[in-house]
Amino acid sequence: MKVSIIGSGSFGTAISILLGNKGYNVYTYDRNSELINFMREKRENERYLKGVKLPDNVTPVSTLEEAVKDTDVFVLAVPSHGIREICLKIKAISDTDKVIVNLSKGIENGTLLTMSQVIEEILPKSKVVVLSGPSHAEEVSRGIPTTVVVSSKHKQEAENVQDMFMTSNFRVYTNDDLIGVELGGTVKNVIALAAGIADGIGYGDNTKAALMTRGIVEIGRLGVALGAKGLTFAGLSGIGDLIVTCTSMHSRNRRAGILIGQGKTMEEALREVNMVVEGISATESTYHLSRKVNVDMPIVEALYSVLFEGKNAKDAVSELMIRDKAHEIDSLL
Amino acid sequence: MKVSIIGSGSFGTAISILLGNKGYNVYTYDRNSELINFMREKRENERYLKGVKLPDNVTPVSTLEEAVKDTDVFVLAVPSHGIREICLKIKAISDTDKVIVNLSKGIENGTLLTMSQVIEEILPKSKVVVLSGPSHAEEVSRGIPTTVVVSSKHKQEAENVQDMFMTSNFRVYTNDDLIGVELGGTVKNVIALAAGIADGIGYGDNTKAALMTRGIVEIGRLGVALGAKGLTFAGLSGIGDLIVTCTSMHSRNRRAGILIGQGKTMEEALREVNMVVEGISATESTYHLSRKVNVDMPIVEALYSVLFEGKNAKDAVSELMIRDKAHEIDSLL
Repeated sequence: MKVSIIGSGSFGTAISILLGNKGYNVYTYDRNSELINFMREKRENERYLKGVKLPDNVTPVSTLEEAVKDTDVFVLAVPSHGIREICLKIKAISDTDKVIVNLSKGIENGTLLTMSQVIEEILPKSKVVVLSGPSHAEEVSRGIPTTVVVSSKHKQEAENVQDMFMTSNFRVYTNDDLIGVELGGTVKNVIALAAGIADGIGYGDNTKAALMTRGIVEIGRLGVALGAKGLTFAGLSGIGDLIVTCTSMHSRNRRAGILIGQGKTMEEALREVNMVVEGISATESTYHLSRKVNVDMPIVEALYSVLFEGKNAKDAVSELMIRDKAHEIDSLL
Repeated sequence: MKVSIIGSGSFGTAISILLGNKGYNVYTYDRNSELINFMREKRENERYLKGVKLPDNVTPVSTLEEAVKDTDVFVLAVPSHGIREICLKIKAISDTDKVIVNLSKGIENGTLLTMSQVIEEILPKSKVVVLSGPSHAEEVSRGIPTTVVVSSKHKQEAENVQDMFMTSNFRVYTNDDLIGVELGGTVKNVIALAAGIADGIGYGDNTKAALMTRGIVEIGRLGVALGAKGLTFAGLSGIGDLIVTCTSMHSRNRRAGILIGQGKTMEEALREVNMVVEGISATESTYHLSRKVNVDMPIVEALYSVLFEGKNAKDAVSELMIRDKAHEIDSLL
């Protein structure tokens, strides 16, 4: 069975290794042909996943045609802003009816579509399965026990992907709440940026825990307004992924937030992290989505004003803390 | 207005400082008279909260009588296993009808009563208000932005305590789900021990996030069986407090867990941490409570077998990971 991993960043490579070790015939593609050449030669992705060897049945390829041809399953592992473009390129080769496992998390700016909606719009015959949850690539590649969720409109395909990815160290749950799983994965990057800013200002664990707890409430409120189930946000693709993103130094979103909290501008922070920081475009799209469906998201709004309107970060956090006293359950609803 | 803080550990002292700075006439008592003498002389609690000065209107006292006499509000800040004894001592002085703000978190071994139930059993005229949430004492004492929840059967008293404790850096919510708030505060110490063990074994952020996410599900399941509201566990006294306890090195529960994960016995870990580790007795009482009400709590059961039945910690975590594949939402319910 041939599996095509589109995008050889850290998570794409970690999944190549996982599926390679399970015996699948894995082709991993990236548009950076220098990276692919290096991976082919050294059997390692030194730039994104240093020190972990590729299994023999993982083949790095530098053209999309080689990856796509006669494949059985696609795995999309490109940044969210690249999803539309890569789907158009795949369509030019094949209007595929295969399963597409999407690892990318985001809401498209402008259209405000989720990633699965973008994929379906371009490749309507394909069957999209989303994989999400607390899964830093570095740890997945080293066999550290990890749990994730898969979700799809197509129940049978979700269960097939569950079986395909499951190992003794990579536990896969199913959850049929597709919009909930996708929103959790997107908005947690926004909250991680905010938590990083709080860290950068010098606030403590209490402040960060408060931001995260109130943050998941906001995500849930948006989700329910868009038809998601509240419970999904209490699960792995909600609070689980939020925890890992907000507390780990592996997280680029958190690292960018820390730099902004220390007084750097968004542009300076992005230059220093030097990788895609999904939380920045996610802040923009989530802000507009919350306005569109008229849902109150004070943390997202505060972050939007810091990133895009030049508001002082410390003032923004202070204002979040000093609102009227409230009854907790009412404000959770 | 006189406020009596019973117990001058780190959290009792942090609250003394907070209320002292708000202008209350605070008496802080501890049975350790050497500690009280030192606090009186140096105006600092060097053992538990080094480097933070006591405001002038905080008076350390070494007899319970001095603290209790003519007081308007009690704050109980003793370890959970000491609550029954201190309430009996207070009763011998005064069968008080005042507000008792309880900071102690636990379920009494043997009776399986929550702390507010123990207090009410002994001091039935008093009005118990529980305060819980992500609030490391060190950070509260330094004015780091912190949010907590107060809960009580007595609505007016809960709101009075909300006003009494609220500052611009200490945001107090109310939540009328008393049993939910108390269970969250108790069982999170169990999950923090388990998360610490995972850290000590050398597992990563993915594993810990999975344990925490599944942990809050377990706590919620127990809570709902005991009449709590599910939403409470998504709030500050649930996931918020769990996050702070599982991710911070301030947490004794987490530190003890790390030592056990590194191969130390429970006794060795306790000696090394050298402070009360609430999670150990909480594991015992939660385990028995879950059996009593017939609720499935796999993490609590695994931890119980590690702590009290000599099970290998790594085996216990592995077994938690390799259960049957599951649908996430079903197992959240």
